[in-house]
Amino acid sequence: MNVHTPITTATVSAFAWVPDFAKGHVRDLRVRWAHEEAGLPYGSQTLMPGDDADYRAQQPFGQVPAYRDGEVEMFESGAIVLHIAERSESLMPRDAAGRARVQTWMFCALNTMEIPIGNLADIDVFNPTADWAKERRPAVEERVRKRLAELAARLGDNPYLDGDGFTAGDLLMTDVLRNVPAALLSEQPTLAAYVERCMARPAFQKAMAAQMADFTAGPPAWWTGGRGNPANA
Amino acid sequence: MNVHTPITTATVSAFAWVPDFAKGHVRDLRVRWAHEEAGLPYGSQTLMPGDDADYRAQQPFGQVPAYRDGEVEMFESGAIVLHIAERSESLMPRDAAGRARVQTWMFCALNTMEIPIGNLADIDVFNPTADWAKERRPAVEERVRKRLAELAARLGDNPYLDGDGFTAGDLLMTDVLRNVPAALLSEQPTLAAYVERCMARPAFQKAMAAQMADFTAGPPAWWTGGRGNPANA
Repeated sequence: MNVHTPITTATVSAFAWVPDFAKGHVRDLRVRWAHEEAGLPYGSQTLMPGDDADYRAQQPFGQVPAYRDGEVEMFESGAIVLHIAERSESLMPRDAAGRARVQTWMFCALNTMEIPIGNLADIDVFNPTADWAKERRPAVEERVRKRLAELAARLGDNPYLDGDGFTAGDLLMTDVLRNVPAALLSEQPTLAAYVERCMARPAFQKAMAAQMADFTAGPPAWWTGGRGNPANA
Repeated sequence: MNVHTPITTATVSAFAWVPDFAKGHVRDLRVRWAHEEAGLPYGSQTLMPGDDADYRAQQPFGQVPAYRDGEVEMFESGAIVLHIAERSESLMPRDAAGRARVQTWMFCALNTMEIPIGNLADIDVFNPTADWAKERRPAVEERVRKRLAELAARLGDNPYLDGDGFTAGDLLMTDVLRNVPAALLSEQPTLAAYVERCMARPAFQKAMAAQMADFTAGPPAWWTGGRGNPANA
């Protein structure tokens, strides 16, 4: 019998409650999805949004997800997905050129794409009737439209951003793109089909079910309806 | 005499011209800075903003920087800095726990921090007199203020985010934080001192000088003043 170094199960933080519109959209989904693609086990540890005095020692912004395993303690969904991808060729090739391409798409998803897409969601979800939002929306939408066209041009006829194989870049890109209003996304049919293809993966479906299953609590006392975005990174 | 595999010098793309307000703020700076910290040589290849038909094969959004070396071809400043950090302990520790911490700060800089800070800059630099911007600015500023306070709480009395040693996380965080209006940043004196400390590094100064030296061209014909943000990622 061999003696192994004990492996501490990976643990990802998640919310026990969020408003309905945020359910299925909290960013622990990305980390759960990465585990499922990689075939690596994980557990979750839930907290209530706002009830994070102790949690902030682990996550300074009170956001979800934070992550721990036997080796590391970290936060930021992009960084955690990268950490998991380094352990599995099902998320990132091992050669330098392939790693570079995947890391490119990961940062592209969370910066170049998520900034304009997040700004549009910020208007549509949180400020749909504000005067400033009505005046600003056309320019924000146009920025998203431009980025989508550029991304679609690069994707071409490939099933995934890196060609034939799904990677951690597709994982993050999909979770960003699925927040684009359907009518806008459908202006780029290949991109809409790409998002659908990635979301149809069993690993995505499992991750989504697991996030939903963790919403076991009712709303907290401070929740009075429409009071802004739960901490989410 | 040994025969070595030829090493292709790393090449970063840069603009030959940008509007004055953007000089010193184009994102090839991050990649130049990383090379200087790591003591790795690099060269630049300049293009004019907008004149990017061929360049888009390398960078699908027409943004700067893109990067090539003997092994990889990639874009997104965060991904490129990570690639360089993997080659130098002066930017990232080699152990798993240290890598995880640095990657956390890198994604934190370019997502959690850059999103609100970029939105504030978008108002102050590009839309200072728009009605929507006047109405929206207080909420955007408040979001930045909150993030700065949370980051300052985590930084504490440490000279750098990971403790005593400068890392690629500080590099990206500094380049994001230096876009915060001075009066707002100074509400967190330790953070203001941190940004000053990082910007005082000789490697930052060299990178800045190198970006400035590459602005050798006059404005392009399409430039008529104030016409929006040059492509920048």
